[in-house]
Amino acid sequence: MKITRPTLLIDENKCRNNIRRMADRAARNGLIFRPHFKTHQSLDVGEWIREAGADQCTVSSVQMAGYFADGGWKDITVAFPLNALEVDEINRIAAKAQLNVLAIAPESLLLLVKKLTNPVGVFIEIDAGYHRTGVDPSHYGEIDAILSVISSSKLLSFKGFLTHAGQSYAARSKEAILKVHEAGSSIVKQVGEHYRKQFPDLVVSSGDTPACSVAEHFDGIDEMRPGNFVFYDIMQRDINSCSAEDIAVAMACPVVAVLKDRRELIVHCGGVHLSKDFLKRADGSPNFGDVVRLNDHGWETVVHGYAKSLSQEHGILPVDDELLNSAKVGDVLGILPVHSCMTADCMGEYYTLEGRRIGMMRKAGALAESIS
Amino acid sequence: MKITRPTLLIDENKCRNNIRRMADRAARNGLIFRPHFKTHQSLDVGEWIREAGADQCTVSSVQMAGYFADGGWKDITVAFPLNALEVDEINRIAAKAQLNVLAIAPESLLLLVKKLTNPVGVFIEIDAGYHRTGVDPSHYGEIDAILSVISSSKLLSFKGFLTHAGQSYAARSKEAILKVHEAGSSIVKQVGEHYRKQFPDLVVSSGDTPACSVAEHFDGIDEMRPGNFVFYDIMQRDINSCSAEDIAVAMACPVVAVLKDRRELIVHCGGVHLSKDFLKRADGSPNFGDVVRLNDHGWETVVHGYAKSLSQEHGILPVDDELLNSAKVGDVLGILPVHSCMTADCMGEYYTLEGRRIGMMRKAGALAESIS
Repeated sequence: MKITRPTLLIDENKCRNNIRRMADRAARNGLIFRPHFKTHQSLDVGEWIREAGADQCTVSSVQMAGYFADGGWKDITVAFPLNALEVDEINRIAAKAQLNVLAIAPESLLLLVKKLTNPVGVFIEIDAGYHRTGVDPSHYGEIDAILSVISSSKLLSFKGFLTHAGQSYAARSKEAILKVHEAGSSIVKQVGEHYRKQFPDLVVSSGDTPACSVAEHFDGIDEMRPGNFVFYDIMQRDINSCSAEDIAVAMACPVVAVLKDRRELIVHCGGVHLSKDFLKRADGSPNFGDVVRLNDHGWETVVHGYAKSLSQEHGILPVDDELLNSAKVGDVLGILPVHSCMTADCMGEYYTLEGRRIGMMRKAGALAESIS
Repeated sequence: MKITRPTLLIDENKCRNNIRRMADRAARNGLIFRPHFKTHQSLDVGEWIREAGADQCTVSSVQMAGYFADGGWKDITVAFPLNALEVDEINRIAAKAQLNVLAIAPESLLLLVKKLTNPVGVFIEIDAGYHRTGVDPSHYGEIDAILSVISSSKLLSFKGFLTHAGQSYAARSKEAILKVHEAGSSIVKQVGEHYRKQFPDLVVSSGDTPACSVAEHFDGIDEMRPGNFVFYDIMQRDINSCSAEDIAVAMACPVVAVLKDRRELIVHCGGVHLSKDFLKRADGSPNFGDVVRLNDHGWETVVHGYAKSLSQEHGILPVDDELLNSAKVGDVLGILPVHSCMTADCMGEYYTLEGRRIGMMRKAGALAESIS
């Protein structure tokens, strides 16, 4: 495969292994496996997941639900607080698929039902400690208010409770992940138990990649929704959700300067390619990605440097002597992304190690016809 | 115009005014106006610039040069260090346009000439204090080494010296910007004077938006290449390159939750929309964008809050009492971006206040045919 400019490589074997391992973990624990597709945003990668046995998925926007519904997915949860302004698109999707939306308060549902024409399921988001969105689990009155709106419309049906324990991203060990997981699980388990007599089929859905990657017990949980695990990245490696060998995407980027005196390489790979997400190094300075060598089978896992700074298209990489002394202008290096979801979104496509293009959803363009 | 999901609005009047003002400033100072198109990446916005009198442009990648050459631009400088791996695309573009590349050392040019089939111009990048890339201005030997490669090929012609004083982005006043501008200009002026006897037609090209926006003297400079000025953003406002009224893009985003107790709004607008670029607030915490109200004529400039945190699709906005008490789920607010170049790149399209779609270059897809 001839690489001439920044190109997001996907190692299909590693990706399929990540999928298989997670599908097995879900099966072992008797959980519904409803992976989050916001990471890969790709019908092709979706097929690999379907081959591993998942017929249901999670997405982060109504637009993404439309993309996957148009691609044949029949059971989709939008794990983002309902935006009733999108009712036309929700109706279109709900006509061809089981679509579940997420409620965090009654208001959006009240707006939705005014124009809803097709049945949709409703999950209620519970804040299990992340404090981004979701109902406070001690406020049963708020949950009851949402349930009351759901029961007032014959197009709405209550599906269950959903939580995202995003605070696990602050963990840096398996023990720390499990502590977050257990605390969060016990909260949603309690909410689930409270309502299960009234709604025997309710589903308790949980889904951060760290917990789904390392936990062996999912007490009180019925469904898992990890997303990032399909690719992982150096953030997940540092959290201890995965090993360096599991990371399934790398940015291939051409070296345009070898600056011996500064002990740095300049590559064509900037914020429009990797995104500006960063990890903090020990001294507090940012790391926008780890530098590895590419080889005939993909890339090595030995790290030779990092991206200390990204402009729009420039990457500045302090590297070790071994790489500095051997690197030449015109070489192509790999950068392992900090946050693969954001990197994939920036690039809009992947190439397998065999050079096959893997397409993704396009954000742009689809609005054109719907705007008057 | 009916907005249902995150939509990047462009105020055409403000944008055209920004363009006209900069074109006038270039003309007043007798400078070639070669604006940087990496900000808008749009043939439509390019036409507004052409109407203001510019027939030449700057881009940040060979891919972007191809997009604008295919759209009719005949004189294009790629202001990113030459990547000779892209020689096939360089040959294709150079067959239909005057294409200038950027050299920072001899190596890339030596690789390029092996397969170059069409004439290209060469600028030599001078490091005038930003210390990202470019030749140290005191190292005439390095400049001579590059000139020697240029003179050895009849397809290469020396165009002049180019600098980007990106250190002006750390300024926060007109005085601080001018100080950077004067220091940088005197460096490239000296290099230009040193070589002008040998190359009487050489062009000294300079181009950071802050200096181009506020300087009234461009001593020793022949060409300006500002980019961000077409839209500006809150970073430029804080640098004092522009006023709040000049900012020509805003992200329209639906409110999905009003959290009275936290005094925050949750909007559909995350890192995949705004990018993760941020400004530091007085207490060191990040600001990912300023919150304004939309109105019938676009948006107001009064700031009611800011984005304190962005997930992939969520924005969390602490807001003032006025907005908190009036905001409702289903409203659409505006967020003024921190860095409009990155935000535009994330979105891939704009909509004018009249609802007209303004297309942009697509990063994805174009590689497919060139990969074997």
